Amino acid sequence: MLAGTAYGKSDVRLVKVTRHGDRDDLIDLTVAVRFEGDYDESYTNGDNSDVLPTDTMKNTVYALAASGPVEGPEEFGVRLCRHFMDRNRRLSRVRVDLSEQTWGRIAVGARQHGQAFVRDGGALRTATVQQDRGKVRIGAGVTDLVILKSARSSFTGFMRDEFTTLPDSLDRLLATSLTASWQYRDADVEFGQTWRAIRALLLEAFADHDSRSVQHTLHAMAQSVLDNIDAVTAIHLIMPNKHHLPIDLSRFGLMNRNEIFVATAEPYGLIEATLVRGEGEPQTGRQLRAAGP
Amino acid sequence: MLAGTAYGKSDVRLVKVTRHGDRDDLIDLTVAVRFEGDYDESYTNGDNSDVLPTDTMKNTVYALAASGPVEGPEEFGVRLCRHFMDRNRRLSRVRVDLSEQTWGRIAVGARQHGQAFVRDGGALRTATVQQDRGKVRIGAGVTDLVILKSARSSFTGFMRDEFTTLPDSLDRLLATSLTASWQYRDADVEFGQTWRAIRALLLEAFADHDSRSVQHTLHAMAQSVLDNIDAVTAIHLIMPNKHHLPIDLSRFGLMNRNEIFVATAEPYGLIEATLVRGEGEPQTGRQLRAAGP
Amino acid sequence: MLAGTAYGKSDVRLVKVTRHGDRDDLIDLTVAVRFEGDYDESYTNGDNSDVLPTDTMKNTVYALAASGPVEGPEEFGVRLCRHFMDRNRRLSRVRVDLSEQTWGRIAVGARQHGQAFVRDGGALRTATVQQDRGKVRIGAGVTDLVILKSARSSFTGFMRDEFTTLPDSLDRLLATSLTASWQYRDADVEFGQTWRAIRALLLEAFADHDSRSVQHTLHAMAQSVLDNIDAVTAIHLIMPNKHHLPIDLSRFGLMNRNEIFVATAEPYGLIEATLVRGEGEPQTGRQLRAAGP
Amino acid sequence: MLAGTAYGKSDVRLVKVTRHGDRDDLIDLTVAVRFEGDYDESYTNGDNSDVLPTDTMKNTVYALAASGPVEGPEEFGVRLCRHFMDRNRRLSRVRVDLSEQTWGRIAVGARQHGQAFVRDGGALRTATVQQDRGKVRIGAGVTDLVILKSARSSFTGFMRDEFTTLPDSLDRLLATSLTASWQYRDADVEFGQTWRAIRALLLEAFADHDSRSVQHTLHAMAQSVLDNIDAVTAIHLIMPNKHHLPIDLSRFGLMNRNEIFVATAEPYGLIEATLVRGEGEPQTGRQLRAAGP
Repeated sequence: MLAGTAYGKSDVRLVKVTRHGDRDDLIDLTVAVRFEGDYDESYTNGDNSDVLPTDTMKNTVYALAASGPVEGPEEFGVRLCRHFMDRNRRLSRVRVDLSEQTWGRIAVGARQHGQAFVRDGGALRTATVQQDRGKVRIGAGVTDLVILKSARSSFTGFMRDEFTTLPDSLDRLLATSLTASWQYRDADVEFGQTWRAIRALLLEAFADHDSRSVQHTLHAMAQSVLDNIDAVTAIHLIMPNKHHLPIDLSRFGLMNRNEIFVATAEPYGLIEATLVRGEGEPQTGRQLRAAGP
Repeated sequence: MLAGTAYGKSDVRLVKVTRHGDRDDLIDLTVAVRFEGDYDESYTNGDNSDVLPTDTMKNTVYALAASGPVEGPEEFGVRLCRHFMDRNRRLSRVRVDLSEQTWGRIAVGARQHGQAFVRDGGALRTATVQQDRGKVRIGAGVTDLVILKSARSSFTGFMRDEFTTLPDSLDRLLATSLTASWQYRDADVEFGQTWRAIRALLLEAFADHDSRSVQHTLHAMAQSVLDNIDAVTAIHLIMPNKHHLPIDLSRFGLMNRNEIFVATAEPYGLIEATLVRGEGEPQTGRQLRAAGP
Repeated sequence: MLAGTAYGKSDVRLVKVTRHGDRDDLIDLTVAVRFEGDYDESYTNGDNSDVLPTDTMKNTVYALAASGPVEGPEEFGVRLCRHFMDRNRRLSRVRVDLSEQTWGRIAVGARQHGQAFVRDGGALRTATVQQDRGKVRIGAGVTDLVILKSARSSFTGFMRDEFTTLPDSLDRLLATSLTASWQYRDADVEFGQTWRAIRALLLEAFADHDSRSVQHTLHAMAQSVLDNIDAVTAIHLIMPNKHHLPIDLSRFGLMNRNEIFVATAEPYGLIEATLVRGEGEPQTGRQLRAAGP
Repeated sequence: MLAGTAYGKSDVRLVKVTRHGDRDDLIDLTVAVRFEGDYDESYTNGDNSDVLPTDTMKNTVYALAASGPVEGPEEFGVRLCRHFMDRNRRLSRVRVDLSEQTWGRIAVGARQHGQAFVRDGGALRTATVQQDRGKVRIGAGVTDLVILKSARSSFTGFMRDEFTTLPDSLDRLLATSLTASWQYRDADVEFGQTWRAIRALLLEAFADHDSRSVQHTLHAMAQSVLDNIDAVTAIHLIMPNKHHLPIDLSRFGLMNRNEIFVATAEPYGLIEATLVRGEGEPQTGRQLRAAGP
């Protein structure tokens, strides 16, 4: 018995250049479209008559990008969702995930060049728009924002058993690659400005926190967003603990004054939590994550 | 308000060699442990007193691998879950994800060498064990099984709109990288033998199906597992459509008799579904996926 | 002053299906073409009049694949080189690198299916063909062949200094991801059969060797190829030491009887050497490597 | 016959925090060490008596990082080379490749935080130091610097044959992921300042060039470095052509005013060249590349 289905197109790569004389704007998006609905016949009988091909989904991304402005991932996601929902009668939920690779302008002397760009590294800006027959839900986020604290991070007083070898640490390096996703109450948001404000809040809370654990700092970061940005109803953070281990230099007759570390890739701790606004509808971490990028 | 938390250790790399004179057995696992429970105080106050460090989780994987046989990912996952559940009073659910990289023996002439191995490529065998205070749930799966049909695959009669450019295809290449995960009714299963039987069923159904779409073939594959393996209560398949596009050779005065293709990496279609046994408890695709690897 | 130039097309993905009724053959190649020659004017003045676009190189791969059989990477590389050399007067050297992803047939019961395939994992078969105005040089190889010995591998008696902490090991795990490339004397070779024979020789030598180091085993493997395959004039092997470290279980009151290991990804040792036949023209490792895939 | 050997350690991950009260400095390097010399006995006989283990190379990286300042990749590479050359009598050439991941400070309001960092994305700074018995050669570079021009880039007047389908383009998007490496005349260089100057020159030349091809722009970029930075004797650039293809929107009744593009990952053009100073010793691209990162 079919208990659930979904289909769509992923990794649609769109670059739009908007021309303003000798100054161009550039937006670089990777888009995924996902349909859920009454498509059981296509699975059980191979009846494709109501199946919009994923190739058409891809074409639609380019056509809609051409036929109107692409201001940011949230607005473009809303346009895509509305388009698909209006035209596909068997569709009960459409979801569009977008991630934006930002670019800066190349500096030529003191001038910012109008038509030459250098790709920002680091984090991607993300958005997720979900539309049901009734309403639209808009989320945004950031992924792969790699941050590190060289002070004010401890991990002590934890549970011990016969397999514990980790010592208390009063002063460790704390590093993570943050993935954050949050839900907006509605579409009445200045998306770009709000995204930048939330990114700054997350960074500041991370930097200023007296950390007793990744959990502790994650909570402070998420709480800061809820405290300062009214438009956000829920936020989910995932923070892998990218362990930086101090090297034992005593074997070489040297001291390590908490200065020399090996950055390790595996294994890694993985910490996550969802915070919701008191008045909001409660959402589990799993639900939020599904809504996130 | 905290609406959900989880923490754990990922990418714990374990290789166990079991010695039998001049013939060794090798098992190569990557393990992730995930705790959910009443750990809110560690987030809100930085109180670590009931927090088992993720470093200890890692040590436990090695210690348990040493103190008993590691027969396969399912059994080892059950042992790990039980160990953690017994000793962590705040834990309400522990989940262990395991993926096994299999190795074959190197052939030296007609003999299989006892102590030299070559890594199998291709798919990974996966397992997921989840334990609540009451019961344990055991799932298994396969990931990254790349398969291709060069005949008996069509895609016709689909919905068309003004953005549709895809022509009907009566004879296309169909390729995918299958990820499958399924749930066992209980622990009374010969896990290794059953896994091999399910893998064979999936491959056979893919090979023999007269495909009208990825959806259609996916359903036939999942149904074949439910029809033939009683121990499976639900199965979830994810099949990206790895598009192989025929090259237009007419521009060069050549014919393409459905022989020359470009394999494309992006964009790709993404098709998924969950099938459950009629008598079983219904599970949505999302729930199954969360339970899968 | 321009001291050297090269241009070409990389990652051309070609899948050719050859139809024989209900039994198809499949070859899956990734091709790179590289031109060296008198193209300085295109760099200094932007004069493109003798520049064959890389887009045309790509088209040529597909056109030549359609207009004749593609029996293996070596033969197809030779055809491509000859085609380009004949038509590009400024070209002094053309090089084609090919890597083949092999596929097996899906078994349906006892039968091998004629038109359904499962991708082999593991190693890629590679070939490199270089043509100058005078002659063609044909090389072949294998890449990413991951192998492991669980016995008969030691590393002792090495140089020690104040930074040495590694103990002697009489019995360690030895694992590597082999990249091998070799040169053929001429084109008078059964390429497929010879490739399989060389792969088998490399595996057997690895399996049977009493290893005192990666260097030691690498040499035995390369020597075995030179000793057994007359057509090979030189061979270059690269063997990263994929360290598998025994876990210290004594901290948990357990013994590690050389059974429990952590597989590490970084850092890794990297060992390489080139062996040439006595009578052959000497080639340095660097030259060989440049000729390799 | 052994025609060439090398061995070493790769992917040694070093993070050094230098403490200055409440303001720390951070340097994040990945280091590879490579020995060439008279080590044939270790290959042929397994005689390790003069083999410095790669594990000791790794330890040496950490010990030298602790026992003196790590100001930048070039200086640290010189220290490592000298250390190894002084102590390993069979060593004829040592090479150290370093790549630096740079980090910026997190802004908290108007203040730059002293002990919290955000990883820069984008390009890595690289250095390569090679020491023979006689002299040291120092090179530097940048890798994965992704840049794009939305105007002033054409490709016309190229060679045509029966497989050419590419039309002339007067106005195309030009994008690449630049890898540059250059050689310094000697060690009398302000390495950090010079690296930043060269990076700026490369970006400016790319931005301001009226491009007739990737080759043409590559040459202008390399020439600009030779013209402006006396300390550089040779420079090698590699520029993959990251194709951005305009979407044909006429199929949907829409116009594409050179605004809507698909960014493609494969296949890609690959263009490279080496420029040397007239008076300098000529170096081929291959030699330079071997010296580069």
